Formats: sequence, structure tokens, C-alpha cells
Amino acid sequence: MAVNLNPPDPAALHAVPGVRIGVAQAGIRKAGRNDLTLFLFDPGTLVAGVFTRNRFCAAPVQVCREHLGESHCAPVRALVVNTGCANAGTGEPGLRAARRSCEAVAALAGVAPREVLPFSTGVILEPLPLERLEAGLPAALADARANAWGDAAAAIMTTDTVPKAASAQVVIDGVNVTISGIAKGAGMIRPNMATMLGFIATDAPVAAGVLAELVRDVADASFNCITVDGDTSTNDALVIAATGHAALPAIDDVASPPARALREALARVALQLAQAIVRDGEGATKFISIRVEGAKSRAEARQVGYAVAHSPLVKTAFFASDPNLGRILAAVGYAGVDDLDVRGVDLYLDEVHVATHGGRHPDYKEVDGQRVMAKPEIAVRIALGRGPAAATLWTCDLSHDYVSINADYRS
Amino acid sequence: MAVNLNPPDPAALHAVPGVRIGVAQAGIRKAGRNDLTLFLFDPGTLVAGVFTRNRFCAAPVQVCREHLGESHCAPVRALVVNTGCANAGTGEPGLRAARRSCEAVAALAGVAPREVLPFSTGVILEPLPLERLEAGLPAALADARANAWGDAAAAIMTTDTVPKAASAQVVIDGVNVTISGIAKGAGMIRPNMATMLGFIATDAPVAAGVLAELVRDVADASFNCITVDGDTSTNDALVIAATGHAALPAIDDVASPPARALREALARVALQLAQAIVRDGEGATKFISIRVEGAKSRAEARQVGYAVAHSPLVKTAFFASDPNLGRILAAVGYAGVDDLDVRGVDLYLDEVHVATHGGRHPDYKEVDGQRVMAKPEIAVRIALGRGPAAATLWTCDLSHDYVSINADYRS
Repeated sequence: MAVNLNPPDPAALHAVPGVRIGVAQAGIRKAGRNDLTLFLFDPGTLVAGVFTRNRFCAAPVQVCREHLGESHCAPVRALVVNTGCANAGTGEPGLRAARRSCEAVAALAGVAPREVLPFSTGVILEPLPLERLEAGLPAALADARANAWGDAAAAIMTTDTVPKAASAQVVIDGVNVTISGIAKGAGMIRPNMATMLGFIATDAPVAAGVLAELVRDVADASFNCITVDGDTSTNDALVIAATGHAALPAIDDVASPPARALREALARVALQLAQAIVRDGEGATKFISIRVEGAKSRAEARQVGYAVAHSPLVKTAFFASDPNLGRILAAVGYAGVDDLDVRGVDLYLDEVHVATHGGRHPDYKEVDGQRVMAKPEIAVRIALGRGPAAATLWTCDLSHDYVSINADYRS
Repeated sequence: MAVNLNPPDPAALHAVPGVRIGVAQAGIRKAGRNDLTLFLFDPGTLVAGVFTRNRFCAAPVQVCREHLGESHCAPVRALVVNTGCANAGTGEPGLRAARRSCEAVAALAGVAPREVLPFSTGVILEPLPLERLEAGLPAALADARANAWGDAAAAIMTTDTVPKAASAQVVIDGVNVTISGIAKGAGMIRPNMATMLGFIATDAPVAAGVLAELVRDVADASFNCITVDGDTSTNDALVIAATGHAALPAIDDVASPPARALREALARVALQLAQAIVRDGEGATKFISIRVEGAKSRAEARQVGYAVAHSPLVKTAFFASDPNLGRILAAVGYAGVDDLDVRGVDLYLDEVHVATHGGRHPDYKEVDGQRVMAKPEIAVRIALGRGPAAATLWTCDLSHDYVSINADYRS
């Protein structure tokens, strides 16, 4: 029951020159379902990535970090993605299994193991069924096609109900540049990128240092602004591949107009994917944006926004379409801004001015709050009245289905 | 559906000499239900309190702070407690209403307004129906009896399903000292005392400075170690009244044996009340203790414990009796201990050794985890392996009923 989210139109997903994708059924997740995805990149492709900060980060995340090196950007020829098992909390054997999966892809695709990045999503604390993964690889390789973004978006899903893909084309210095991406993740979503996998590719030619900076910027403007349940997973990853096939000079200055144009287009695709994750949040029935302004810093604005976005009481009120808006003020009050003067705080629900000077706005009528709360998409705006900084987050409500999905996930 | 929690046995609740309690129906919450409670203390009674740190603290909390003064302890003759309306987010009019309620009690009881403390719990952002509260006071006063702890425990409930009261007697220097207390609160519970009201009285004679320190110590050892949903309310308060009727010399040294004996007995009563709140947590079906040991500091141990206790994924796994224990490791990993070496982390569920060296324990069998998860009371133990400090928290699971209760609270 995703909120205003439809499956992507395959015709709207552009092939990215230099990228081929294949999917297969490896029987890791469940029978009869694609659960293995292989991205193949032409020589010369650079990949940069950002990863979970969870200390229990999964084995594949550790291998990705090794392969991308200290610059978080390296030449890469393949990505291998499995669902059904996160290969997290699996210790040394898990690390060996993640490395072996890279070796297996490398042998089949004729590249170096270091040029392969592994990604896993699924249950934690279970060993990766490496044999099944390896056995599925030839079929994925044989399936590799120039435009399988839609199939890949479906193959990487776990509790997602709708595949998530986005695509854009932008003209940079007169040359058409393509960006396509997919993502998965429906719960365990929060800053620092919860059980979220995002794969974006472009044919723009981008220097390694610029690509590493772009992936951080783009993550901060998209996946790091969403939350479903506040849990941060062991496996989160966002990578951007740049094949360099577009006939442009290499983008080697992050401040240049081509870099800015590319960043803007990448961020647009990434935000569309990130918002799709929230719209398809586990059990979501509402899509809620939370804008905090008048903060002393962007960090403070985000801190207040996350306190509101993570409050189970706020989230259940949205689920119930109940304008129990004092719960939002209470969350603002415990967000940890110790010198907050509540007399400067204003609260708006869409255009309705709910609270001012630390209390109910004199013109506020519950019927107005009720009208907004009944909508499937709601904008909360909190003005702190103490500075120039602002931030916007996106989240969803907490419903019965969230509990059902997470209580039944493994059964 | 509280977890192993029965209503208190009225015969086990001791009257506290110097304390009278009356209850009444004021029609603030709903018709036909006691929602107004009056505590009356003999002259000479001292009261100390600790209150929510929420910046949107409610009007009655502000008035309590004023009346107790900078030492957080003062002579007090009456407490007035209403349910049904929190008088929070109500600005200056709310503050005036809270002060007026003290004046009304003072006029009826023949004491000074400053000797009255007001407490409210219920919906936020709604004006306090002061006229109804005032109209109910004479009945509450007329009802005042030496032992109405059980009735008061029921009258202060909101979404609680079971009244919460506890009582103890302890012999100090050969003199019998009585402690009785009640509490309410079922959701919005977390450190710093969420929609939690606790009222404890003793006949021990305690000097003001010692009482103020005792109430902080007792809160830290009880109500500040529990969490239901991580929300911190605008109205939380714990007060301890000491009437001084017991024939003891005044306890004026916090390090003295009588002070230590009193503190131990107060903490025992408070912990029983605090755990009762968790057992009656909104929708709770499991009572879970989380002990974190091997931490560098108690604060670090609490930080890790709360990350686990607040994780919706962990809480839904407990609800489902599903040993999806990687979710606990994931929460440990994102708890914000940036230099945590997961290879030093051990995880136990009751006596079952689940994880070691950052992965599944070689002897761990899912059937053992399943057996523990099926129990109504579960002990989680997390050994971080990096220091000598430890802390224990208590929490409950996240069930369908939590969502139902909070989605329907106002309807």
C-alpha cells in the first residue's frame, strides 16, 4: 500500500551507455523469484560509494570499502547484488564468502576480483549461501542487457512492494548525459542510510575525486534525509558509476558548471528514489515532509526534524489522521535543543497555523487540522525562531501493517 | 494485557501517617470515572520532585518548579492531580489555569497556594477545563481518607490498564518507617520520565537537602531506567513527600545509615512502580530487561541499551517471538559508539549465548533462541568488552495494540 507510488514505466528508464544488467533466480531468497542482480560496466568506469556507519557493518560493505580504497572511488567492472541474506553479523566466514562472490564474478566476467563490488540485503546473522549465489551467476551474466533497470529494480526488493527506479537526461555543454538508478529499502531507513541499497549510473565522464565528492553530496541531499523507523542497517550503500561514454571533457572540477549540472541531475534522481523508499515504507499510509526552519544550524534543524519523524506517538497520530498535534510539540521539546525557547516556536500543518508562542494558535480550529491530517501527503513545518538554518526530512506513518510486516518478516 | 502485572492488593498498601488522599469525578476525562485526586499532607511535610526535561514542559510542571524553588524541595500541604488534560502547549492561559487550581485547593484546604503542587496528564494542546476541576474539589476533599492509595492509583490512570501502587515498611534505628507510592504512565515513557506521574510518601523525617538528593537518586535508579516508546512527555513528574511522623531523629546526612536504608526502600518501591509501567506499556506483551556491561561508562552502557530498547525492529521481533537477533546487533552497531570493536561484543538471551566475536556463536541454535523469545519475560545481555561499566534498562515489545491504542487515544 505504497503512498502515491507506481511501478516505474520501463519506457521512461533510459539505458546508460557502458552499463549492462542481468538478473537471475539463485534461490537465496525464495524459489521462483529473481534475487541476484549483476551490473557490468565497460572498462574505464569509475564507481564511488557511501556506506552505512553501523559498527556491525556487513561483510559486503567491508569488501566494498576495501575495493574502493581510501578515496572511496575506484575503477569497477561489476556489481553483484543478492537479496534474502544480508551477510551481516557473520564474522570472518562472512567476509570470506563476500570475497569469494567477487572472485566468482571476476572469473566469469574476465575482470579482476578487486574490480567487483558485492552487495547483500536480507536477514542478519545467517550465513550467505555462497554455492547458490555462485550457481546463479552464469544465468545473470547470460541475461545481461543494455536496459534492464526495471528488472533489476524488482530483483533487489525485499519487503518493498513497488520497484523503485528513476531516470533523467540532462544536456551538459551541448551533450546529452543520461542518469538512471534503482533503489530498495522499506524499513530500517534513517540517516546514514538504512537497509537501503541505491545504484545509480551515468555515462558522464567524471574524475575520481569529483565522483567521490558527488556521491557524498547526493546522499546527503536524498537518502540521508529520509527515515521510516529510525533503524540504521548493517548493509546500506549508495554507489554511483560513471562510465565516461558521453562525449564530454572529463568533469574534474567540482565547482565547474558541468559538475554542478551533473550534481543537480544526480540529486534529482536520488531524491526521487529516496522518496520512493519512504512512500513504500513498511506499512506506510501517509507521506510526510517535515521542514524545520529558524534553526541555529542545519544539524540542529535535522535533530529536531528527526525527533519528530521518529516519534512513535507522532507517527501513529498520522496513521489515525488524528490532529493530536501536541505530540509534535512534545517531540520538538525533547529533541535535545536545551536552550530552546518554546515561545518562539510556530507549527504549521500544510497552510494551517497550529501553534504559536508555545501554545495553540488562537485561530486554530481542530477541523482545519483534521482536514490536513486526512490527506495522504502532509507537510509539517516547524519554525524554531532562533536562527537562519533549515532542513527538510521525509518520513511515513506507523501503522498496523508496519508491525505485521516486521513481526512476520522471516516466517 | 499487562505482562505479569496484577492490580495492587489494597491490604498490602500501607497508610502513611500524615497523608490523606481523596478522589472524585470531575468530568475532565470522561463521565463516570474518577479523574481528580487530592493528596493532603500534615503541617511539616516536605516534598521534593524531579520533572520532565522536555522544553515544552506543561504549565503544572512550571508551577511545581516555582513552588518547590531552587532547592527542588519545599513545605507542601497538598497535591492536586487531574487526568484527561495535560495542560501542556497551552501558553500563558494554561499557566494561569494551573495557578488558579492551586488557589482553589488552598482556599478549600486552608493552606497557602504556594503549598499546593498541581499535576496534569492527558491530551496536549487543549485548555484545562478549570471550572470542572474546581467544581470537583469539594468532593475530593470530602473523600479524603488515611488510606486511599488504591483508589488514587486508579484515579490517575489514562491509557494504563492496571493501577500501579507499591508499599514497603522498613525499620530504621528501631523505628518502623512506611513508604507508599503510586504511578501512572503507559506510553511516552523514556529517560527523563515520560508521561509518567509518580507520587511517593513516607513518614520518615527527612531534611530538605537530603530529600532533594533522594528524589534524584531514586528517579535515576527506577523511572529513568525504563522506556516504552522513546517519547518523553511534557508532564513527567516524580515527587516524594516526607511527613516526618515517624519517631526518628531527622535524617539530615545523605551518607548516614538511616539515609541509606531509606534510599534503598524508596528505590525498591520506585523500581516496582517503574517496572509496573513497563509491564503495562501500551500494547505490551513482553517484559524485557536489557543489561549492557563491559562499557567504558554507565552513560555509554545506557546509550547502547536505549538504542536496542527503542529499535522498532527489535521490539516487533520480541512481539513476534522471533529470534531475529541480528536486529539487536544492528542496534548495538548504530548506537553511536564510534570506536566500538564488534569483535569484542557478546550477546546473550537469558542463558543462551547468541553471538560472539561479531558473529553468531558457533554453538547457537535457533531453537534455543526461539525458546527464550517465546517467554513473557526476557533478559537480554550485551557485553561490549571494552570497560567496567554496566547499566540495566527495562522495556516492552511493540505490538499491534500499541498502534491501536495510540491511533485511537482521543476518539
